[in-house]
Amino acid sequence: MSNSYKKYLEHNRKHTDLEFATALLHWDKEVYQPTKGNRFRAQQLSTLSAISHEMMTNRKYGKLIEDLFKNKKSLSPAERRNVELSHKNYIRNKSFSEKFVIRRSQAISTAFDAWIKARAANDWTIYQKPLENIVKIKREEAKLVGFKKHPYNALLEEYEPGATVGQLDKLFSDVRRQLVAFVAELRKKKQVDDQFLYKKWNKDKQWNYGLDILKKMGYDFEAGRQDISEHPFTISFSPEDVRVTTRVDEKNFGNMLWSCIHEGGHALYEQGIPTEAYGTPIGNAVSLAIHESQSRLWENNVGRALPFWKANFKTLKKQFPKQLEGISLQKFYKGINKITPSPIRTESDELHYHFHVLIRYEIEKGLVEDSLNPAELKTIWNDRYQEYLGLEIKDDKTGILQDIHWSHGSIGYFPTYSLGSFYAAQFYAQAKKDIPNLEEKISKGDNQLLLDWLRKNIHQHGARYTPNALCKRVTGETLNFKYFMDYVKEKYGGIY
Amino acid sequence: MSNSYKKYLEHNRKHTDLEFATALLHWDKEVYQPTKGNRFRAQQLSTLSAISHEMMTNRKYGKLIEDLFKNKKSLSPAERRNVELSHKNYIRNKSFSEKFVIRRSQAISTAFDAWIKARAANDWTIYQKPLENIVKIKREEAKLVGFKKHPYNALLEEYEPGATVGQLDKLFSDVRRQLVAFVAELRKKKQVDDQFLYKKWNKDKQWNYGLDILKKMGYDFEAGRQDISEHPFTISFSPEDVRVTTRVDEKNFGNMLWSCIHEGGHALYEQGIPTEAYGTPIGNAVSLAIHESQSRLWENNVGRALPFWKANFKTLKKQFPKQLEGISLQKFYKGINKITPSPIRTESDELHYHFHVLIRYEIEKGLVEDSLNPAELKTIWNDRYQEYLGLEIKDDKTGILQDIHWSHGSIGYFPTYSLGSFYAAQFYAQAKKDIPNLEEKISKGDNQLLLDWLRKNIHQHGARYTPNALCKRVTGETLNFKYFMDYVKEKYGGIY
Repeated sequence: MSNSYKKYLEHNRKHTDLEFATALLHWDKEVYQPTKGNRFRAQQLSTLSAISHEMMTNRKYGKLIEDLFKNKKSLSPAERRNVELSHKNYIRNKSFSEKFVIRRSQAISTAFDAWIKARAANDWTIYQKPLENIVKIKREEAKLVGFKKHPYNALLEEYEPGATVGQLDKLFSDVRRQLVAFVAELRKKKQVDDQFLYKKWNKDKQWNYGLDILKKMGYDFEAGRQDISEHPFTISFSPEDVRVTTRVDEKNFGNMLWSCIHEGGHALYEQGIPTEAYGTPIGNAVSLAIHESQSRLWENNVGRALPFWKANFKTLKKQFPKQLEGISLQKFYKGINKITPSPIRTESDELHYHFHVLIRYEIEKGLVEDSLNPAELKTIWNDRYQEYLGLEIKDDKTGILQDIHWSHGSIGYFPTYSLGSFYAAQFYAQAKKDIPNLEEKISKGDNQLLLDWLRKNIHQHGARYTPNALCKRVTGETLNFKYFMDYVKEKYGGIY
Repeated sequence: MSNSYKKYLEHNRKHTDLEFATALLHWDKEVYQPTKGNRFRAQQLSTLSAISHEMMTNRKYGKLIEDLFKNKKSLSPAERRNVELSHKNYIRNKSFSEKFVIRRSQAISTAFDAWIKARAANDWTIYQKPLENIVKIKREEAKLVGFKKHPYNALLEEYEPGATVGQLDKLFSDVRRQLVAFVAELRKKKQVDDQFLYKKWNKDKQWNYGLDILKKMGYDFEAGRQDISEHPFTISFSPEDVRVTTRVDEKNFGNMLWSCIHEGGHALYEQGIPTEAYGTPIGNAVSLAIHESQSRLWENNVGRALPFWKANFKTLKKQFPKQLEGISLQKFYKGINKITPSPIRTESDELHYHFHVLIRYEIEKGLVEDSLNPAELKTIWNDRYQEYLGLEIKDDKTGILQDIHWSHGSIGYFPTYSLGSFYAAQFYAQAKKDIPNLEEKISKGDNQLLLDWLRKNIHQHGARYTPNALCKRVTGETLNFKYFMDYVKEKYGGIY
C-alpha cells in the first residue's frame, strides 16, 4: 500500500468518525433530546458539519486525492474504487463556491420554515415562492455540477449514482402503462376486509412483538437497538451499532409492525457491511435505491407474503387472540395486502405507492427542465392524483404539502423509493432461483438462508460496485421492471 | 469588543460545540449504546478528542490567545477572566510534548486494563506496577506544569483551581482531630434502625418517585431527562440540555433516591449557568468542589434533613404504605441518617465518607512527594482503615481496588469530594442566614427560595470567580471547616 493511499485512508477514517458522531446527535434529537435542547443542538450540528466539510475540501486533501486519482492505475481494484468515489465526491464538493453553499442553505432554511407554516395553515400559497427558489437553486446546482443530456441527471446522481432520465422515463412509462392499468382492474374487484387491523392492539404487546420479529429477521440487538420516534428511521454509527426507530399506534396494528420490518431491512444491510471497510467509501451503502430494496424486500416480498405468516401467524394469534378472533391465516394475509388509494404516500399500499412517486418524478423533471410552471404546481398535482389514483385531493396538507423532501432541497430523491421496490422484486426473484427451498424455509420460521444470500450478494459489497453493476452481478441483468410486475400479478391475482 | 476577542469567542464557541458533541457520545455509551458498538465508539471518541485538542493548541490559536493575554488590560473584567482562563489552559496544554501525552495515555490504558483484571481476580499485585507507573507519570506531569511549594499542587490545580497542600493539610487535620473523634463517640451510642429501607420497594414506583422529587427540586425536564446507567452521573450538552442518570435497587430504597437528589443538585447548577456564556470559559462550572457542593447540599443538607421530609414524608408513605408501615417521620429521618462505617466510599454515610477521602489524600500526597513507598500501599491502606474507621479490610476489591480514579490518571481528584461537602455546609449556613424562613418554606414543600438563592449566588456566575473568591463573595470568608462541624454536631446530636 502506497504511503499516500495510507494517508488517504487515515484521513477518511477520521472523517467517518466525525460523520458518525454527528449522526448520533441527529439520532438523539429525534429520540431522547429534551425540547429546549434544540437551539444549541442545532449549533453543534452546524459546527460539526463545517469541520467535516472542511476536512473533505481543504487544499491538502485535495492534492492528495488528485494525485491518487492521477496514479490510480497503480492501485488494486478495491483501492481504485475508493479513490474514484472520493475523487468524484471531492470534485462535486469543489464545484460549489462558498457563496453558493450559503445561498443554498439559506434557501433551504426559508423553504423549510415556509413549509412548516404552510402545513399549519393548510395553505399552499405560503410555500409556493420559497419552493420556486429551491427549484432555481437546484437548477443552478445541476449546472455547476455539470451533466450529460438532462439537468435532472446531475441531481439524481447525488442519491442514485448512474440513474438517468433515460432510465427513469422508461421505468415510469412502464408504471403508467402496466401498473396503473393493473390496479384499475383490481379496484373493480370485490374488496378484501382489513377491519381487524384497526381494533385495539395493546401498545406494549405490539412493541414486544416487533422486537421479536426483528430478532427473527436476524437483526443483531447486540449491534443495535430500537427506540420510539415520530417518524421511523434507521441510522448507523458503524456496522456494529445500527439503530432503528418505530412508533406504535394502538388503533392501527400495521402502523408499527411493517415499519419495524422495513427499518429492519435497512438495518440488516448496514449491519452486513464489513467492518474492515469502515472509513472508506466502499464501507457505505451503495445508493438509496439499493438501500430501499433491502427494506422493501423484507417489508413486502417477505413480510406481506404467505410463507412468512405461515411461520408467524400462530404466535401472533397467541399474543392477540381477541383482535384475531375468527381471522384465518388467509383472511389475515388478504387484509394486510388490501389495495386502496390514499392521498398520502407514506400511508399507501405497495402498488399505489408508485403512483405517488411517478407524480413526483414527472413534476420534478418538469421543474428542473423548466417545462412546468411552478405557479401551476398545485393544479398539476391535483389533476394527476385524479388521473392516476382516481382521488380528489381535498386540501393542501394531504396534497402537495405532505412531504418534507423538497423543502430540504431534496429533488431527485423520490424516484429512489420506487427503484427500491423494483430492485427488491428482481433480487427476491433471483434469491428464489438460487435457493429453491427458500420460501419453504421461511414458512418454517427460518430466515437465515435469505439473510445469508443478501449478505453474500449485496451487503458485503458495500459500495464496491455501482448499483447497475451490482444488479447485473446478482441477477445477470440491470434493473428490469418486469420482475416487479410478475410479482404483483402473481400476488394480487391470488388476493383479488 | 475587539476583533481578536471576537475571533477568540468564535473559536471557543466551536470548540465547546465539539466538546458537548463528544459528551453526547459518552452519555450514549453509558446509557443506550449496544455492547458491540464499543470498538468504533472508542475510535470516534479518540478522533473527536484529537480534533478538539488540536483546536486548543494550534499555533494560530496560540498567537491569538497570547496577544489577547498581553493586552488584557484593554478588556472588560469578564472578558479578562475568560482570556486568563483560556491562557492558563493553553499554557498547561502546551507544557506537554506529544511524546509525553502518548506515554501518559499508554500508561493510563495499561493501568485501566490492569485495574479491571486485578478487581476480577481480587488481587492487588496485578495492579501494583501499572499504578506505580501512573504515579511516576503524574510526578513528571507536575514538573512539566510547574508548581510552588509542593508538586501535588500542580495536580490539584487541574480539578480545583487555587487548592493547595497548605489548605488541605489544615482541612484534613481538622477532619482527623475533630470528625474522627466525633464519629468515634457516635459509634458508642445506641444505634438507629434503618431496616425498613431494605424491604422490597417496587422499581417503577421508585423511579416515578425519583422523577417527582427532581421536579420538586426545580429540575427542568424540558431542559433535561433522567435515564438508567450503571453508575449515576450528570452530563451537560448546554444549560438547556442537562441530563442525569440513576439506578434502581428493589432491595435498597436509598440507593436510588439520594442519588437522584445528588445528581439533581449537580444538574441544577448546570441548568443555572447563563446560556449567554455558552462557549466561553466563564460558561463552565468553576471547579469540581463547587460542583460537588451543589450535589451534597441537596443530598445531605436538604435531602437528609427534617424540613424536606416534613414536606414529603406523607406522599412517600402514600406511595409505599407497606414498606413504611409503623414508621414515623422521626424514625424515617433517623434511619436515613444511620452512621455506620463501610469499607466502600460510595456506600458510605455522610460522616465516614470523609475518612475515605482523608486516606486517599494522605496516600496521594505521599506518593507524589515520594515519601511513601508504592510497594507498601496495600499495608498502609489497610492500616489507615483500621485506624480511622475501625475496619478490617478483608480483600483488595473492597479495599484498595475499589475506585477507578487512579487507573484513569486522576490523582488530586479525591479531595474535591470532601471540599464539596464542606463548601455545602458553609453555603447552606449562609442561605439560612440570608433567608430566615428558608427551612419553614422547605418543610412546606417550597424549594424555590433555596434554588433562587443558589442561582443568584453561585450558578449564574459560572466560572466568573475562582472558588476561593466565590466562597468569600457568598459567605464573607474562604472555606472554613467549622461550618461542616457545626452542621454535623447539631444534626447528629439530635439523632444519636
